[in-house]
Amino acid sequence: MQKPMLQVALDTLDIPSALKATRALAPEVDVLEVGTILCYAEGARAVATLRALYPDHLILADLKAADAGTTVAEIVFSQGASWMTVICCAPYATMTAALAVARKYSGDVQIELYGEWTFAQAEKWLEIGLTQAIYHRGRDAELAGQKWGPADLQKIRKLADMGFAVSVTGGLTPQDLAIFKGIPVKCFIAGRSLYGADDPAQAARAFKAAIAEHW
Amino acid sequence: MQKPMLQVALDTLDIPSALKATRALAPEVDVLEVGTILCYAEGARAVATLRALYPDHLILADLKAADAGTTVAEIVFSQGASWMTVICCAPYATMTAALAVARKYSGDVQIELYGEWTFAQAEKWLEIGLTQAIYHRGRDAELAGQKWGPADLQKIRKLADMGFAVSVTGGLTPQDLAIFKGIPVKCFIAGRSLYGADDPAQAARAFKAAIAEHW
Repeated sequence: MQKPMLQVALDTLDIPSALKATRALAPEVDVLEVGTILCYAEGARAVATLRALYPDHLILADLKAADAGTTVAEIVFSQGASWMTVICCAPYATMTAALAVARKYSGDVQIELYGEWTFAQAEKWLEIGLTQAIYHRGRDAELAGQKWGPADLQKIRKLADMGFAVSVTGGLTPQDLAIFKGIPVKCFIAGRSLYGADDPAQAARAFKAAIAEHW
Repeated sequence: MQKPMLQVALDTLDIPSALKATRALAPEVDVLEVGTILCYAEGARAVATLRALYPDHLILADLKAADAGTTVAEIVFSQGASWMTVICCAPYATMTAALAVARKYSGDVQIELYGEWTFAQAEKWLEIGLTQAIYHRGRDAELAGQKWGPADLQKIRKLADMGFAVSVTGGLTPQDLAIFKGIPVKCFIAGRSLYGADDPAQAARAFKAAIAEHW
């Protein structure tokens, strides 16, 4: 089983705050995520800025795109994104269109699993060529008190068994990682628990240590 | 029945292109929409720019937000948005959070109906205080050949009967508007068919004339 990667979700309100985070964290993480908040706040220049500074990192533009797949994919891949996300309720035509652009740039598209979705839809996503999914305990769901539990693990395992490379996010701590043991997680994603830490690099190393321990 | 408003969706790749459109169209339309494409490309400064230029227009930030409702709502309402959108598959917690911020700014939140959704969900949206919905024949669905039809009209009418103020969008022409006659549409939304026209102001007036004819 491949070792999960570590991804930092940069959900800052501006580019300088994101760069303060990446200055400490880029050497420690595999994937730099331009979070949806940063996309909305600063637009695609956030992707271009990170690509200029970090030519060798995987960079994800977390657009959660729901339409206009060709255009929005072109916006972020042309600025240097490696991956982008589409929202799970997007029309299949949007996913297919985004994937075609991604492939032109040797990039990939990830499905962001939010709210209500079904495994029947997931079969269809595989059919149209999508192989990456992000299993997300949303921030608002987290604030509403929803916890990681056996139902989450069962769904993540089932997605992995179907053939998805599944990334996992939502209020994760290094202590949480043990419960995912045995599942081929693609990336563990953390945001403020990394760049909001007193020592962000040390916080990232704690995640890496937990990954090394369990995978 | 109130007369539907006309909304221009600015799905340009940069702010100057949007301003070229609004210079011609702002006097003719009621609502200026910062389209998702423009949000992704330029970020919230697109909202701030339009608000600076057009203090009296309704301005919609078409974020299609799926998470972090408080933060993303604060980003756009603090820059002068009147309305923002959330995607229909967003968690209810996200919708509730965005709506709370909107109300602080005397703004509102619209649900963008994409892909699969149910009237049971729509009941829940009303329950949590959302009263505006956007019925959307998506761009990619349109490219895939999906046409306006009786099934669309039936759903729009049912949403209106439930109490939603429904805006309608997706490849609309002035000739299409007749089929919505008798339905209390909140806004008709058009994009490139307005600002891509040889005479954008004239194109907008053709929509207004069709609205005046049928409502």
